[in-house]
Amino acid sequence: MDQKNEMFMQQTTCSRWGIFEVGIDGPKDGNPFIEQKVTGIFKGDNETVSCDGFYDGDGVYRIRFMPSFEGVYTYQIQTTFGGDCAGSFTVTAPKENAHGPVRVANTYHMAYEDGTPYYSIGTTCYVWELQSDELIEQTFETLKNSAFNKIRFCIFPKHYDYNLREPRSYPYEGTPMDSSVLTTENFWDYTGKTEGNHLDLTRFNPAHFQHIENCIRCLGELGIEADLIMMHPYDRWGFSQMTREQDDLYWNYAVSRFSAFANVWWSLANEYDLMPHKTLDDWEHYATILCEKDPYHHMRSIHNCISLYDFSKPWITHCSVQRTDLYKSAECTNELRERYRKPVVLDEIAYEGDIQHGWGNLTGEEMLRRFWEAACRGGYPGHGETYLNKENILWWSHGGKLHGESHKRFGFLLDRLKETPGLGLQPCNRTWDEVCAVPQEITPGEAECGCKEYYLIYYSFMRPAFREFHFDDKSSWHVRVIDTWNMTIEDRGSFQGKFKVTLPAKPYMAVQIWREGADIHLL
Amino acid sequence: MDQKNEMFMQQTTCSRWGIFEVGIDGPKDGNPFIEQKVTGIFKGDNETVSCDGFYDGDGVYRIRFMPSFEGVYTYQIQTTFGGDCAGSFTVTAPKENAHGPVRVANTYHMAYEDGTPYYSIGTTCYVWELQSDELIEQTFETLKNSAFNKIRFCIFPKHYDYNLREPRSYPYEGTPMDSSVLTTENFWDYTGKTEGNHLDLTRFNPAHFQHIENCIRCLGELGIEADLIMMHPYDRWGFSQMTREQDDLYWNYAVSRFSAFANVWWSLANEYDLMPHKTLDDWEHYATILCEKDPYHHMRSIHNCISLYDFSKPWITHCSVQRTDLYKSAECTNELRERYRKPVVLDEIAYEGDIQHGWGNLTGEEMLRRFWEAACRGGYPGHGETYLNKENILWWSHGGKLHGESHKRFGFLLDRLKETPGLGLQPCNRTWDEVCAVPQEITPGEAECGCKEYYLIYYSFMRPAFREFHFDDKSSWHVRVIDTWNMTIEDRGSFQGKFKVTLPAKPYMAVQIWREGADIHLL
Repeated sequence: MDQKNEMFMQQTTCSRWGIFEVGIDGPKDGNPFIEQKVTGIFKGDNETVSCDGFYDGDGVYRIRFMPSFEGVYTYQIQTTFGGDCAGSFTVTAPKENAHGPVRVANTYHMAYEDGTPYYSIGTTCYVWELQSDELIEQTFETLKNSAFNKIRFCIFPKHYDYNLREPRSYPYEGTPMDSSVLTTENFWDYTGKTEGNHLDLTRFNPAHFQHIENCIRCLGELGIEADLIMMHPYDRWGFSQMTREQDDLYWNYAVSRFSAFANVWWSLANEYDLMPHKTLDDWEHYATILCEKDPYHHMRSIHNCISLYDFSKPWITHCSVQRTDLYKSAECTNELRERYRKPVVLDEIAYEGDIQHGWGNLTGEEMLRRFWEAACRGGYPGHGETYLNKENILWWSHGGKLHGESHKRFGFLLDRLKETPGLGLQPCNRTWDEVCAVPQEITPGEAECGCKEYYLIYYSFMRPAFREFHFDDKSSWHVRVIDTWNMTIEDRGSFQGKFKVTLPAKPYMAVQIWREGADIHLL
Repeated sequence: MDQKNEMFMQQTTCSRWGIFEVGIDGPKDGNPFIEQKVTGIFKGDNETVSCDGFYDGDGVYRIRFMPSFEGVYTYQIQTTFGGDCAGSFTVTAPKENAHGPVRVANTYHMAYEDGTPYYSIGTTCYVWELQSDELIEQTFETLKNSAFNKIRFCIFPKHYDYNLREPRSYPYEGTPMDSSVLTTENFWDYTGKTEGNHLDLTRFNPAHFQHIENCIRCLGELGIEADLIMMHPYDRWGFSQMTREQDDLYWNYAVSRFSAFANVWWSLANEYDLMPHKTLDDWEHYATILCEKDPYHHMRSIHNCISLYDFSKPWITHCSVQRTDLYKSAECTNELRERYRKPVVLDEIAYEGDIQHGWGNLTGEEMLRRFWEAACRGGYPGHGETYLNKENILWWSHGGKLHGESHKRFGFLLDRLKETPGLGLQPCNRTWDEVCAVPQEITPGEAECGCKEYYLIYYSFMRPAFREFHFDDKSSWHVRVIDTWNMTIEDRGSFQGKFKVTLPAKPYMAVQIWREGADIHLL
């Protein structure tokens, strides 16, 4: 990974949606993380933003700001240690391919702040960024050659099956328990707060966070959103069982460090409901911190195991769903849209792989089927990969190389999503035995499916040898037959009235149909 | 088909579960179906059975009796036309392979009356018996070489997509509408009671019923249960819209003709909820006729489209289910068992084929998967086939040849069911990510899955490369790995304590595990 430290240098300019950062020398003594405070106000013609700074170790304090507009800004920094300062800087045009943070654009769908549609194609690599430099480099290479535009990962290290090795760093000062005692047999006994950990949960390890920030920045350059999992239950160190004061310290520290990165999303937890030491009040409390302290209001959600969080809470920008049924996953997108009226991001619909756990041994075909089901129901699917391999490096946790088949086909799906007129798809109840998508209508509610301009119809595991269509008697309808697995598109030309489209009687086929003359931009 | 008329000859003996029939000459004038009545009492040491006879045309009346015990019986017949008679006969041992009617044996599972377990492997051919002799003969040949032991079919002809041709006969006297006007485009307009039908719904066509009886008898000789669909909505003649009196006449006539066949099941309707002219009261009324007039209490149920009938009704012996969800079908077996505490027969879990309708274009793999899911959850799956072909003969409706792949693999499943100790399987909640079956326990309720003698575990679309097991520390456990698609069985020998079974990381695998020394009889 290319260690660019541009953002830590003295700045007089900053690009729109970039980071303007001020570094201030201050005291090292005592516990600066608790005893000192840095706050700042950043003012431009169109916005005034207050935010907190943080202690970055070695006597250096920093405060960061992400400008949302071009033009001249001034700032004033206040400190508890006599390092107050002020100044001004100019915000220039955004860098090429910088589109700003992702926002909810039309109830169910997302766009970058500059209006560019964002069709989320996510993956999960829980602690890829806490691996060796070589492995991290390999992960970046894989991501660069993929269609992924979001990746979920943890700030805390992970203790779990296939996850017993030491992370590259810890978020706190001190020494963790001796991991050489762990085996694949006994690791379940080491949960939560285990004897032998000597970590000071009031003193952060700035290098851990600096490294993660560098990863976030590199992801941003690849056009990939960093969906940060702030808490999780897979723990042998006690990070999942900290006190309210320790948690507050952590949340404030993380928010002050990460918020200024345009591509950050907040996932309050992975499987919040597997953390018995946390109550619903705790999660709402963390959400309050986020809402108060992240001035940019990055995407916010929380991920479940058994039971979905109540996504109707106003702080939640989108549903972040782990499927709760072994058989129905992406198929629940419609219900979730109707119930919550927010973007449905299916962050976990089981993973492609061959490990023994039912959440990690889907075929590539089934994974891709779930992607298309989700997309054609107006939701956003998430991937993960858990193939056994000699190196014992599973993508789902460590990153590295992909071994599966589904990921090769996501770009093809993404292209079809980009062909949708307007922003996003919505499910349409045309018939009971197909997944039919039409362009998202602005008025929320599911389409009754009268006559639309554009249809994307998916047949899933079904394999009709033909289908009959009848939209109207006047228009000409253009038809393309899509093999989602083999990634082929057959142009079938123009039809009128009631017409029949022959199909190859294979699973995983889709059909695109649009009224000729409609504003369709094929890729 | 070999036309054996043995049962219509003068009889002095009858085998157990065979048919003893008395024929009586009587009047032809007026409407004998309405105006005359024949009743009889049949007495043996262990049973006294009253039942009705019926008019069989040409001045011949008949009454039938199925003896459930061996020994000497006497009978007395009363008629409204002075044909009363009496006599005696001897009931001999059952014919080879005659096991009596199927009964509910232990809440969830079935056995023939002689105690032989009955593991239902059904298929659907709605009007196979109303086709040409050649096609019927081909269907019998197909059935003979299959594992099917139940077939669903209709008494009334069927009007539907792929079902526009004339049936070989009609159940009533008169002339039906001219079917030459029908096309695949317009047939939907001809529903229910259409102009041009001149059928006398008070005068049956005995030849229609005689032919069906011959088919039932031939099925019986093949060991196949005849699941008679008494009513259905796919109608251009008005059979689905008869008056209460006409319905009563039909039900009484059919019951008096068919009840004495050991292999008859009653399905009150196919898709009862698509018959707007019938109310729930009507169905309960027909059920009352069946309960009163069928002295043998053959299996009784009713099949749905959108909404399950209330299977908790006492007259219903088993659930006859059409799946109500495009994605979950056999997976609902557990809930249905828990809710109704009756055998769960999944008569329609969509069909293997490639027609355009979502209910008729499953792959063979998905069909077989649904069979194993159902079976390993303690239910009984049903098949049907809807492949397009040049002859335009679809098994699901017309019988004939099978074109698919799943049916070849049902015998292999049936053998595994026969290997189950005791009678039938019940689901066991061992882990969330496998379908685990154990032998049915006598006390109803789902198995908590402590340590059992025998496990049949199915991995469905998941494909683990291994699974770990730990049942106890004392016993030796024998393991066989089963490829349900390729029909191979690998004996992996004996394991103790916590053990790991490697698997080929392919879908559709199963594992049999039993405690060594348990009473297992492998086939």
